[in-house]
Amino acid sequence: MPNYTLYYFSGKGGGGKAEICRMLFVAGNQKYEDRRIEVNEWDTYKGQMPGSVLPILEIDSKVQIPQNMAIARYLAREFGYHGRNNIEQARVDYISDNFHEIHNDFIRFDYEKDPSKARELRHVYEETCRKVLPFMEDTLKMNYGGDGWFIGDKMLMCDMMCHSALENPLLHNNNLLKTFPKLESLRRRVKNQPELAEYFKRHKDIRI
Amino acid sequence: MPNYTLYYFSGKGGGGKAEICRMLFVAGNQKYEDRRIEVNEWDTYKGQMPGSVLPILEIDSKVQIPQNMAIARYLAREFGYHGRNNIEQARVDYISDNFHEIHNDFIRFDYEKDPSKARELRHVYEETCRKVLPFMEDTLKMNYGGDGWFIGDKMLMCDMMCHSALENPLLHNNNLLKTFPKLESLRRRVKNQPELAEYFKRHKDIRI
Repeated sequence: MPNYTLYYFSGKGGGGKAEICRMLFVAGNQKYEDRRIEVNEWDTYKGQMPGSVLPILEIDSKVQIPQNMAIARYLAREFGYHGRNNIEQARVDYISDNFHEIHNDFIRFDYEKDPSKARELRHVYEETCRKVLPFMEDTLKMNYGGDGWFIGDKMLMCDMMCHSALENPLLHNNNLLKTFPKLESLRRRVKNQPELAEYFKRHKDIRI
Repeated sequence: MPNYTLYYFSGKGGGGKAEICRMLFVAGNQKYEDRRIEVNEWDTYKGQMPGSVLPILEIDSKVQIPQNMAIARYLAREFGYHGRNNIEQARVDYISDNFHEIHNDFIRFDYEKDPSKARELRHVYEETCRKVLPFMEDTLKMNYGGDGWFIGDKMLMCDMMCHSALENPLLHNNNLLKTFPKLESLRRRVKNQPELAEYFKRHKDIRI
């Protein structure tokens, strides 16, 4: 098995950009180093990271992969969470990409310090939620009436994305899923998977 | 081989959301129906499309896949443009996702009618270009000094993304790649691939 190191910023909170990658490592029972960069270390590390961005997945100290969703799909394929054939992979991808849109738009508005820019970016984020959440609720209902996983009989990357991508948006607005009960209970099923339940318990303060 | 129908809006211009999918069909010499929806037909089709969005790829009149990048990755795997192993696929993905960020941010600002919102979204788009383009130029230079493809000796989906994702941004600002000569010449290499050259010649007005 390769040696994996996942680099991301240190901090408190839940559901940052690297969280889906950590969930895949944990669910797949795979060893990895969860390397957190402190603010005062970033100047040292910045030049070593492709594109000067985080998260980065380093494989065997030689290959470095940026872009959280590219990393997540790599890990999902490696550990069996990306579907059994090309069509299933496409379905995992489109569901995951929808949740990623919400997460990405949330982070943009949440990180923006200028109040007038933040207002516009919040509008963009809310519009994305308005389009994506009903679509995802309906998609989930197409498999076992929404009482199982998105696809087939096994938790896949797209189910974990429903958890990780919505974690920060839910901290901001805990009514976000009020009218989407199937998504809400899917998040509980993901959270209660034994390995993930144990991980969430251990790391409740540092999952950015 | 399955029957493929790609649904997208009709219109003039270059490099819309479905273009990377069409380029993959064309480069791979694969038959597909390029179904364009006119504005006055959209009310009829809207309810039949998952999430009421386009593009949609329909496979054998039964499976429908939304999200242009999920469609593109499916086609890239199917036709051999997604790399030879999982690490190459991760590299194709992170490069493609970077170009997708530029394209997505461009479309958002370009489609926004409210001038104050468009100003903020333009700022977001320009910031994305400022981060992504130098990174992509450097990444390209790591393989044959930037005079070949992004990875190995074969054009892959990420090379085609450098073409399709930057087409509209270049119509808006034809100096965009002035300081990125390797990306500029990569786009020419992609465009001059025989199947693609013929396609661009035939469809120069309708490639949205």
